[in-house]
Amino acid sequence: MPSQPGPAAAEPAYDLLIRHGTVVSVFTGETFAADVAVRGETIAAVLPPGTVDPGRAAEVLDAVGLTIAPGYVDAHMHVESSFVTPASFAWLTLPRGTTTVLADPHEIVNVAGKPGLRWMIEAGQGTGQTILYGVPSCVPALLGFETAGAILTPEDVFEMLDWPGVVGLGEVMDYRAVLRGDDRMRAIVAAARAKGKPIDGHCTNLSGPELSAYLAEGIDSDHTKNPIEVHVEKARMGMLVMIQEKSVRPELFEALAALPIQPPLCLVTDDVAPDAIDERGHLDHVARCAVAAGMPPLEALRALTWTPAQRLRLYDRGIVSPGKRADLVLLPELARFAPAVVVSAGRVVARDGAMLSPEPRDGALPFRDTVKLARLSADDFRWRLDPSVPGTGSDGMATLTAIRANPIDTATRPDTLRLPVTAGEVEWEGRATLLTIIERHGLTRTRAAAPLLGFNLEVGAVATTYSHDSHNLTTIGTSRASMALAANAVVEAGGGIAVVHGDRVAALLRLPVGGLMSDRPVSEVVAGAQAVRAALDAWGYRHANAFMSVSTLSLPVSPALKLTDRGLVDVDRRAWADAVHSHV
Amino acid sequence: MPSQPGPAAAEPAYDLLIRHGTVVSVFTGETFAADVAVRGETIAAVLPPGTVDPGRAAEVLDAVGLTIAPGYVDAHMHVESSFVTPASFAWLTLPRGTTTVLADPHEIVNVAGKPGLRWMIEAGQGTGQTILYGVPSCVPALLGFETAGAILTPEDVFEMLDWPGVVGLGEVMDYRAVLRGDDRMRAIVAAARAKGKPIDGHCTNLSGPELSAYLAEGIDSDHTKNPIEVHVEKARMGMLVMIQEKSVRPELFEALAALPIQPPLCLVTDDVAPDAIDERGHLDHVARCAVAAGMPPLEALRALTWTPAQRLRLYDRGIVSPGKRADLVLLPELARFAPAVVVSAGRVVARDGAMLSPEPRDGALPFRDTVKLARLSADDFRWRLDPSVPGTGSDGMATLTAIRANPIDTATRPDTLRLPVTAGEVEWEGRATLLTIIERHGLTRTRAAAPLLGFNLEVGAVATTYSHDSHNLTTIGTSRASMALAANAVVEAGGGIAVVHGDRVAALLRLPVGGLMSDRPVSEVVAGAQAVRAALDAWGYRHANAFMSVSTLSLPVSPALKLTDRGLVDVDRRAWADAVHSHV
Repeated sequence: MPSQPGPAAAEPAYDLLIRHGTVVSVFTGETFAADVAVRGETIAAVLPPGTVDPGRAAEVLDAVGLTIAPGYVDAHMHVESSFVTPASFAWLTLPRGTTTVLADPHEIVNVAGKPGLRWMIEAGQGTGQTILYGVPSCVPALLGFETAGAILTPEDVFEMLDWPGVVGLGEVMDYRAVLRGDDRMRAIVAAARAKGKPIDGHCTNLSGPELSAYLAEGIDSDHTKNPIEVHVEKARMGMLVMIQEKSVRPELFEALAALPIQPPLCLVTDDVAPDAIDERGHLDHVARCAVAAGMPPLEALRALTWTPAQRLRLYDRGIVSPGKRADLVLLPELARFAPAVVVSAGRVVARDGAMLSPEPRDGALPFRDTVKLARLSADDFRWRLDPSVPGTGSDGMATLTAIRANPIDTATRPDTLRLPVTAGEVEWEGRATLLTIIERHGLTRTRAAAPLLGFNLEVGAVATTYSHDSHNLTTIGTSRASMALAANAVVEAGGGIAVVHGDRVAALLRLPVGGLMSDRPVSEVVAGAQAVRAALDAWGYRHANAFMSVSTLSLPVSPALKLTDRGLVDVDRRAWADAVHSHV
Repeated sequence: MPSQPGPAAAEPAYDLLIRHGTVVSVFTGETFAADVAVRGETIAAVLPPGTVDPGRAAEVLDAVGLTIAPGYVDAHMHVESSFVTPASFAWLTLPRGTTTVLADPHEIVNVAGKPGLRWMIEAGQGTGQTILYGVPSCVPALLGFETAGAILTPEDVFEMLDWPGVVGLGEVMDYRAVLRGDDRMRAIVAAARAKGKPIDGHCTNLSGPELSAYLAEGIDSDHTKNPIEVHVEKARMGMLVMIQEKSVRPELFEALAALPIQPPLCLVTDDVAPDAIDERGHLDHVARCAVAAGMPPLEALRALTWTPAQRLRLYDRGIVSPGKRADLVLLPELARFAPAVVVSAGRVVARDGAMLSPEPRDGALPFRDTVKLARLSADDFRWRLDPSVPGTGSDGMATLTAIRANPIDTATRPDTLRLPVTAGEVEWEGRATLLTIIERHGLTRTRAAAPLLGFNLEVGAVATTYSHDSHNLTTIGTSRASMALAANAVVEAGGGIAVVHGDRVAALLRLPVGGLMSDRPVSEVVAGAQAVRAALDAWGYRHANAFMSVSTLSLPVSPALKLTDRGLVDVDRRAWADAVHSHV
């Protein structure tokens, strides 16, 4: 601290003076005209307008007509879902006002293990955004039911919780294991409890005694989409409700407004693809959706700033106040949350939605060659039933268990499909759309298949190594040849997402970093994601969020029927589901 | 963590089951019927009523007609002001629902230095209440203007901030030093900033640019009484407003209710004498006052629980939720906050306002012999003017600067009194009430005197070594003999408060531990405090809170004119005031 004896009348110099603006207080909701002076990374003063002689500031920013609010804090998200590295993610989202994030890196850690988190922490430094991490609690998401690239033990978690840049434990998704008293999961959660760190949750639909048991383990937040009454029950029971875009509904805010007092809430992004960020926005977009659905703008502002900052135990931000961190957004219209200017750590970093600095160029990127598969052929997309499974012995029609997706969200449900079986092989081509998961970490060489219902697809396929959460190779297609074509495009790229129409690759987004992230400039990744999304839609895979739909068919902790590299999983029972429903 | 594999259906045993009650959620404000099960120190479950077989609990508590709320958290208080040791303080206040406190021990540390805090931490262990401490920032309160028993340097503070049981930095009272950029005060505050610890404030009436400058140092709470608009301004500017009883006014809650959103607030006690706790209550009483003045009961509840817990960074309490600490109050009437039962760390500790356990007996208590004064005589209460002070040279009438107190609060203002001066001695007896401060730590042997106006006193005196914050010997009286009598009673007792009527000691509260705390049973201390208060009133010292009035005449950081062992202090200018106004 500089030592500055002397009378209070001498004004020290400021690095930045923001004048003619209006500050909004996240404490009282009032707006008031003020000069905001910044020194270093800190708000040095908030003063009546005209108090500070602009000549005393190195830089003067005119904020006439602008409301000065704190920079936004995202309390739950995944960098990898933007398909870019941390530095590029910061460059993409800072102009939207997102100045601090808590990322759960379970995507890269499921592929690359502890070195994955170590690199993400390093890669998140010096980006202009504060990127903090949770230690993934679910590597893999459902142990024993899928093959990830790594397994984190309780001892690993205990050690990683102390790493600089780590806030707490990432979303505990295997809630059934928690409820059953599974030793490993309980030890992982107990490690975070022992260290007094926050523990985030993921417990779709959990309520009543099960919710109580889950909370009792110290897991006290949830960011999933729930029925309205379950969101309210969670808040009532002391869980921090984190609202992402898909959870936003007018009924939710009506129910909250009807409460005697307002619970703490956070607005979060969870997973957002880069084209969605580019076209719609980041946390600012979630806030606009919430306000459009009836959330009072000042409540939304607090849920973007103070409440998540407190959750992350960052006492130095989340409010425009002297002594706090100079992470600021200057908004032409408070309730639209779209910054005209973004200040991060005291520096102006973005104006009118664009960064002032050039896009960062990552150095040599690690985690190449994580797709350990040889070239595939059409034969790899035959569907041979496991001879030990009942009902596969004789030829004839079989009733197979199918996964039915829907065009709105990522929930699936079980269904059935009758298909001919010959010599143990299901003759699916021309009769069904097949979903396959092929293990790609070079560990077990396992694979599984199931019919996928719910889409009216042309001839073609999609293949992706961005496939929550063990990120094996997911391929969906109407023919073996198109599936092989899509899969090979992805394998050759070292990972990515490929869409095939007929016999040609219609779109390819290369994700060579762990099979999850691109090494290309953000604009190319945005364009690549747009092209993939458009190609999926043109193919007939019409979904409100096609990336999330395709990539969660393999996620065995989100309801209700999913497929991993080892088979069909009944999510609610946390058990295998039979591939063959019955055989005639 | 016990390892408990097995199906969820098997219910583990509980230590305590609270059934037939109604839980109030501090998040949503809703009340709902629930069984609350406790295991160890933790809330194990919050379940629909009747879910738990009472046979599975070691103890069953019937909460029919009772509302179950979190135990109260006092975010700013002083144990010593209760005149009892930490263990006795816990015993006195737990039945009122106070389960956690953050104590600023600047009283004992001003007397006994670092060993004072070390002992308070030890003495606060195992009391059934969580007693945490701030490192005092103001030892002494106004360096250079008074003599305390110790001086804490920035290095001392830096070291003590890491002691177990310490939360952050205690109230920064010398706000003028902060604003002037005083090196020592800035270094003390910077030490807490460097360690990322919370820094509490005390900045009566501070607003505008000065408030901004004070906040800029990282001092972001205030618990003093302010004009309404200043309370609101502090909240607007990001300061945590802590409301003690004297700050409670209907206008305050009207102003808060008119705000667009509600700021975080804490209800706190600051200083409360033991008879006031016994007769009226502790935090529960502050809450009742606030509700009577218009604070919505659910806002008061949150200000008693969740918000102070978060301020203290205690994430394990402040809400009735599974996984959180089982500190609970069972209330017959929520808005009266008076517990029928108190649970602390999972154990029932009090019923119907009384502890279940016997009063603790402290072991050998330290800090005896801290009143290092020989027997005084009436001569010690002559008032000789410092010959170097202008206007004391010749005989005649002099206009002396006097301190005018008021019967409502502890604010004083300057006034004058004409008294005859002969050979440099003020002939005050029979013409005025004299206030004297005599240094008692055995360091400087300094003393000062000034007339006190504002009370209609009979012949008599009061003497006290509980005298904020350097706790020197304050004596107020109408005659030298009565002052000597009162002072000697206190000196002989090793510290305390004595009231003299005429020529006899009417009341004596012995406080031999540091001259601040008693070693007697709580009931005796309560009776002793009542007797002193009654004796002060009978003497003519009629004040809404006589203990605080008498003990803050020496506090040079509370406005506006105060007397220390070294002289008269102009609080707002942070400078000496002249004893002699003018001489004719």
